[in-house]
Amino acid sequence: MTLVIVGLGAIGGSFAMSLMKKGYDRIIGVDIDERTVGFALEQGFIHEGMTSPEAALAEADIVLLTLYPGQITSFVDQYKDRFKKGMVLTDVTGVKTSIIADVEQILPDHADFIFAHPMRGSEKKGIAGADESKFDKANALITPTARNKEENIQKIERLYEDAGFDTITRVSPQTHDEQIAYVSQLMHALSVSVVNSAQASDDTLLFAGNSFKELTRIADINEDLWGELFIYNKEALLSSIESFEHELNVFKEALKKDDETSLKAFLARARHQRRDWY
Amino acid sequence: MTLVIVGLGAIGGSFAMSLMKKGYDRIIGVDIDERTVGFALEQGFIHEGMTSPEAALAEADIVLLTLYPGQITSFVDQYKDRFKKGMVLTDVTGVKTSIIADVEQILPDHADFIFAHPMRGSEKKGIAGADESKFDKANALITPTARNKEENIQKIERLYEDAGFDTITRVSPQTHDEQIAYVSQLMHALSVSVVNSAQASDDTLLFAGNSFKELTRIADINEDLWGELFIYNKEALLSSIESFEHELNVFKEALKKDDETSLKAFLARARHQRRDWY
Repeated sequence: MTLVIVGLGAIGGSFAMSLMKKGYDRIIGVDIDERTVGFALEQGFIHEGMTSPEAALAEADIVLLTLYPGQITSFVDQYKDRFKKGMVLTDVTGVKTSIIADVEQILPDHADFIFAHPMRGSEKKGIAGADESKFDKANALITPTARNKEENIQKIERLYEDAGFDTITRVSPQTHDEQIAYVSQLMHALSVSVVNSAQASDDTLLFAGNSFKELTRIADINEDLWGELFIYNKEALLSSIESFEHELNVFKEALKKDDETSLKAFLARARHQRRDWY
Repeated sequence: MTLVIVGLGAIGGSFAMSLMKKGYDRIIGVDIDERTVGFALEQGFIHEGMTSPEAALAEADIVLLTLYPGQITSFVDQYKDRFKKGMVLTDVTGVKTSIIADVEQILPDHADFIFAHPMRGSEKKGIAGADESKFDKANALITPTARNKEENIQKIERLYEDAGFDTITRVSPQTHDEQIAYVSQLMHALSVSVVNSAQASDDTLLFAGNSFKELTRIADINEDLWGELFIYNKEALLSSIESFEHELNVFKEALKKDDETSLKAFLARARHQRRDWY
């Protein structure tokens, strides 16, 4: 089985390392950066390396694209004539609905694209952030479409299992995007807005404790990646922000009226939900 | 020197333990719960214990009140006739301006009240959450008023040093409240609003990663304490929420217009500020 990994950053590199450890017999790594390819070869993360995908695509059984959201569709468009018959592609993008719509419009009939989302971010960019145990105990989401063949979905599920993922769940693309808007994108939107507040100053850390440090951690954000992710999931994210604002307004109204009873009930509700979760 | 600690919860108990370790020669612990007093005596956190403060107040050089915000003023009002001449009181409340105004109106001339804020919260309630190294490397804020004597401010600073605090900073009560509204109260308001969102469900954890777990940690909130703290600092907190909402609106506007350039600039600004801080 020939696996081609396009993009040898923290995510692509970690897939290469963990699948190499698992004993995959042919992993071809593709990255536009020659030094990255050289490093991956030297370190033994990949069997073969190249800076352009054409040659590899003719032989690929599975192609794992670890590209930015905006590059997925253009990759398929640019290289679709070179796809091997029966080839299965998969991505690692954090948004689904809009990319699926774009890709399925241009995908050739003889290839299948299984859209997936490994739920493990990376603080370190590039191949330096790759780690052979990065995906141990991590969750992954697969978002099957009507066009996907069951056997191909299972191939990608197996790929994730082999890479170390613990729980691999199938959900609809729409559910995926709505839930990710809430649990991940909203968190990032709140964090960057806190940090950009006019109240931020050189004195801030004199007053800040753990909660501020934790809540602002994700404001150290990769603006190129997240700028794209937010826009690709615009409707779901705006809707998550609206639900959040509704609750913040309940909080503000109780506060404005000195309504301690309502305020405490609001806090107690959050406490119970948080304890149910963790 | 006789130190009286009123309230033997996680904070009062930790002060008792760390000052006992430091060698303080007379620590009297007061708590309305008889079992708590018994436990503190048994464990050797305090030299003497009682369930009512009257007798201790006649001999106290320093009285550390670890009470809820709403109890500070009523404590002073109820016991002010028993305060020893030259006695120094101090509190651990997370809000200052409104409590200072209330207390200074009724405080007898022969006693001084140094308002302070140890910057270390507690997940565990009660004396079970007390820890002799709780305050190691912690920050504390002292908010002197025009009425305070310099020597008394220094007495409380020494008390904090002896308890293990690392950085003890003097700030005005108003600055304290504005900054705490931003770095602490706003974080809690956002966290509880996220958890109370209509999007919260039993499926949430299927999608949630570290950022959601971290950001919602403080939604497991003590609603009685925080309900009071929010209302005592209402104006500053509403103003912090407003500054935050202003930035969230900038984010939303860029998103609505698909303005990727402005959105990425907004994210990059947050990234730089976060890296400046940590």
